[in-house]
Amino acid sequence: MQVWSQRIVENKAFQNTIILLILINAVLIGMETYPNIYEQYGSILNVLDVVILAIFTIEIILKLIASEPTGKFFKDGWNVFDFVIVAFSFIFVGSTYVTVLRILRVLRLFRTISVIPSLRKLVNALLMTLPSLGTIMLLLGIVFYIFSVIGTVLYSDVNAEYFGTIQHTALTLFQMITLESWASGVMRPVMEDAPYSWIYFVTFILAGSFVVLNLFVGVIVNNFEKVEKIENGDDDEEKLKEEISHLRQEIRELKEMIKKG
Amino acid sequence: MQVWSQRIVENKAFQNTIILLILINAVLIGMETYPNIYEQYGSILNVLDVVILAIFTIEIILKLIASEPTGKFFKDGWNVFDFVIVAFSFIFVGSTYVTVLRILRVLRLFRTISVIPSLRKLVNALLMTLPSLGTIMLLLGIVFYIFSVIGTVLYSDVNAEYFGTIQHTALTLFQMITLESWASGVMRPVMEDAPYSWIYFVTFILAGSFVVLNLFVGVIVNNFEKVEKIENGDDDEEKLKEEISHLRQEIRELKEMIKKG
Amino acid sequence: MQVWSQRIVENKAFQNTIILLILINAVLIGMETYPNIYEQYGSILNVLDVVILAIFTIEIILKLIASEPTGKFFKDGWNVFDFVIVAFSFIFVGSTYVTVLRILRVLRLFRTISVIPSLRKLVNALLMTLPSLGTIMLLLGIVFYIFSVIGTVLYSDVNAEYFGTIQHTALTLFQMITLESWASGVMRPVMEDAPYSWIYFVTFILAGSFVVLNLFVGVIVNNFEKVEKIENGDDDEEKLKEEISHLRQEIRELKEMIKKG
Amino acid sequence: MQVWSQRIVENKAFQNTIILLILINAVLIGMETYPNIYEQYGSILNVLDVVILAIFTIEIILKLIASEPTGKFFKDGWNVFDFVIVAFSFIFVGSTYVTVLRILRVLRLFRTISVIPSLRKLVNALLMTLPSLGTIMLLLGIVFYIFSVIGTVLYSDVNAEYFGTIQHTALTLFQMITLESWASGVMRPVMEDAPYSWIYFVTFILAGSFVVLNLFVGVIVNNFEKVEKIENGDDDEEKLKEEISHLRQEIRELKEMIKKG
Repeated sequence: MQVWSQRIVENKAFQNTIILLILINAVLIGMETYPNIYEQYGSILNVLDVVILAIFTIEIILKLIASEPTGKFFKDGWNVFDFVIVAFSFIFVGSTYVTVLRILRVLRLFRTISVIPSLRKLVNALLMTLPSLGTIMLLLGIVFYIFSVIGTVLYSDVNAEYFGTIQHTALTLFQMITLESWASGVMRPVMEDAPYSWIYFVTFILAGSFVVLNLFVGVIVNNFEKVEKIENGDDDEEKLKEEISHLRQEIRELKEMIKKG
Repeated sequence: MQVWSQRIVENKAFQNTIILLILINAVLIGMETYPNIYEQYGSILNVLDVVILAIFTIEIILKLIASEPTGKFFKDGWNVFDFVIVAFSFIFVGSTYVTVLRILRVLRLFRTISVIPSLRKLVNALLMTLPSLGTIMLLLGIVFYIFSVIGTVLYSDVNAEYFGTIQHTALTLFQMITLESWASGVMRPVMEDAPYSWIYFVTFILAGSFVVLNLFVGVIVNNFEKVEKIENGDDDEEKLKEEISHLRQEIRELKEMIKKG
Repeated sequence: MQVWSQRIVENKAFQNTIILLILINAVLIGMETYPNIYEQYGSILNVLDVVILAIFTIEIILKLIASEPTGKFFKDGWNVFDFVIVAFSFIFVGSTYVTVLRILRVLRLFRTISVIPSLRKLVNALLMTLPSLGTIMLLLGIVFYIFSVIGTVLYSDVNAEYFGTIQHTALTLFQMITLESWASGVMRPVMEDAPYSWIYFVTFILAGSFVVLNLFVGVIVNNFEKVEKIENGDDDEEKLKEEISHLRQEIRELKEMIKKG
Repeated sequence: MQVWSQRIVENKAFQNTIILLILINAVLIGMETYPNIYEQYGSILNVLDVVILAIFTIEIILKLIASEPTGKFFKDGWNVFDFVIVAFSFIFVGSTYVTVLRILRVLRLFRTISVIPSLRKLVNALLMTLPSLGTIMLLLGIVFYIFSVIGTVLYSDVNAEYFGTIQHTALTLFQMITLESWASGVMRPVMEDAPYSWIYFVTFILAGSFVVLNLFVGVIVNNFEKVEKIENGDDDEEKLKEEISHLRQEIRELKEMIKKG
């Protein structure tokens, strides 16, 4: 049984069929968003969706059987992702939360990443840069929290939509750090009531973008190093070292020769 | 015949004349956009345009004859570009689509790039970085598609102009990834009806800009490597290796000397 | 007495208690911003705040006693920061400036940085890049001042809110250098009265972003070098040099052997 | 006479006096922009301005005399800049173009850069990166011109303020390349009349930001190389080469020894 499922799961044709099904699924889900298509072909689309869900379920069961020991299947985050997506589709089946069901169906499209190896590798690589950015993200979080509290204390009465509660202020600060309408939409209206509020806003923009700039630099440095390790590190420097150790070997041989002769 | 056209085509004066003509063409096309100039000198401008098109046609015919074998001419993408631009000018001649004709005339200005060698090299270099960005652009495409579908499902009723269909949502997402009015123009109006929509928008901004940042880093790394290969790679490291192989040679000679003596 | 306080201050449990207290303090300060929570539990929150302030005061007194000589305590900028924050809390106690008190309380959250060593190191590193950017920040300041004066001279009558005084213009220029609404919100309205004002705005955007770009490059280069020094510098290059000096040693031995033999 | 002026010009105290005067000048010019200060102290400010202009004139005359041959003075761009600024102040003296005079006075503040050596060096370095960016700036110019013509042809009737003439469109494109309101302020209003105009706008954003990104990368690469040449190039690599040539020398000595013995 296990050997049989392993053979199927590792079969190239089987894998390509799954990729093809995910693409078809993507097209179907896209078509569903057009009301007139949905009205006419809604029932067909629903049937196809059930068929695809059934095949995905069979695929995951086969993969579960194929993995030895069974627990190993859940060690890969992507497998867990696949499993959760399919499992949730069953949990919410027949639920009245139509929107939840539709969103779940769309999230299934992320399987494109888990199924195409090169994408899987790329996303793994991107996600792996995140932990090394931990300290700077913690710093950014502290800066955000402090400025959120200050902003709420100072301006909750001036502009409740932007600074009403800590959550509102945090969202406004996030908008500001992307530099979107931070002056024309946020600072200038507040300045009409609180003329010195520019100190708060300019300080946040300067501090925030300095930290974010360093966060970005962290990502860039991380990427550069990875690329350099792959392309140069093992290449030029290594050859130099090899050359030098060859030299050493020859000098040792020379010594031997002189000792003997 | 072929030798004769090769001599013309490779003639420096001929090439400079073509560059000059393209520049004149650029000025003429610019002048045409001013209604009062067009009214007064429209007929002259049209005649000049026909003359320039005729010369360009002769130039391409000469280049076609000059290339041996004839098919080789079409192996360079820039030649194909030149050919298509001129060919289309003939196809649409006398057509009633005045705008199409005018656009075609303007596109002819891209010949400035195909005619000036340094620009041609630069654009070739820029375009060559694109394929290496394939996987990350595919990832960006998937992220765009998934968020387009989710956005359309959730907010098509809230804001039809921005989220009416998948195409509308995709354009809105493109606007958002450039951070243009993503909060003040897109998110905040939607939040009035759907207060939790900030989850969707903030997630997209974070995920999207992280992927785009890495895309940019890809372009930058690509460029750096090219520059480094040209300026350093063949320089310092190479000399070091040479030095070391000289050393090895001398030690080998030493060995020979000891063996003999 | 001094030895006793040193033992306490260096105690791991004591340090963790302080970190925990700062976190609790952060939560309390956040809760205070919600009016309904503040109304109900305001008195409890105030008592807790006094307790925490008392513990912080004891902590600083202990640290002051522990340091030998006493003045050494103030050599670390973070200690000075801690001291000032706590001292100010006492100066303004009972003051009627409630907002000042609340802001001071929030600023105490910056102690999170001074207390967690990894954050302290990161912020120190970030701040250390600033002095090396001195000249370019001076240049930016000069560019800002000159454009502020020109802007005020030219457009104070056209748009008093944006260009009324040098301070207003400087703030507008800061907004412009972040590219926020520089055209739609600042330039285009001014252009209605002063059609040639685009020269001023475009020049500033070009000059300003060129200088800022180089400022950013300065930060990035600084970071890269630090990272490279840590990861590569002491690594590969060093090993190469070691290898070569070993070689030299061996050749010296060879010489000795030949001299003797 | 010449020796005497050289002694003055190279005198540290004289140079510092000039720097001080420029700073005083900067403050005076700033004060002039406040109408109430200008009304009260306007005459004093004018007198001080004339005094400062007189000193600057004497300074330049001294520098002219000090330089041998006299023409050498004009070989440094900064001297030419100083000369032109002062000369223009005389040309426009008594002119009724008060604004021109005031702008000229402000431009004098750029002398801060020409007078402080570290700033002079920095600006020289920044300006020196520009020529190496020539080809890519030419490419950017061509892209701008072509899109300006196309934009004017297509949308001059739709939105005359943004696309009326080539100049208007070029300014709009410059605004768009900084991503400022490109969608909410420019594209979406045009799309109401010309639904397919998004093709034009998105193409320009993609092409434009790709070229600009590469322009920025050019600046960054330039800077990095300069920094690396200064800090590493002459350092580590050089030492390695020295080490290896020492090695070679020793092996040569070995050979000699063996030959002899």
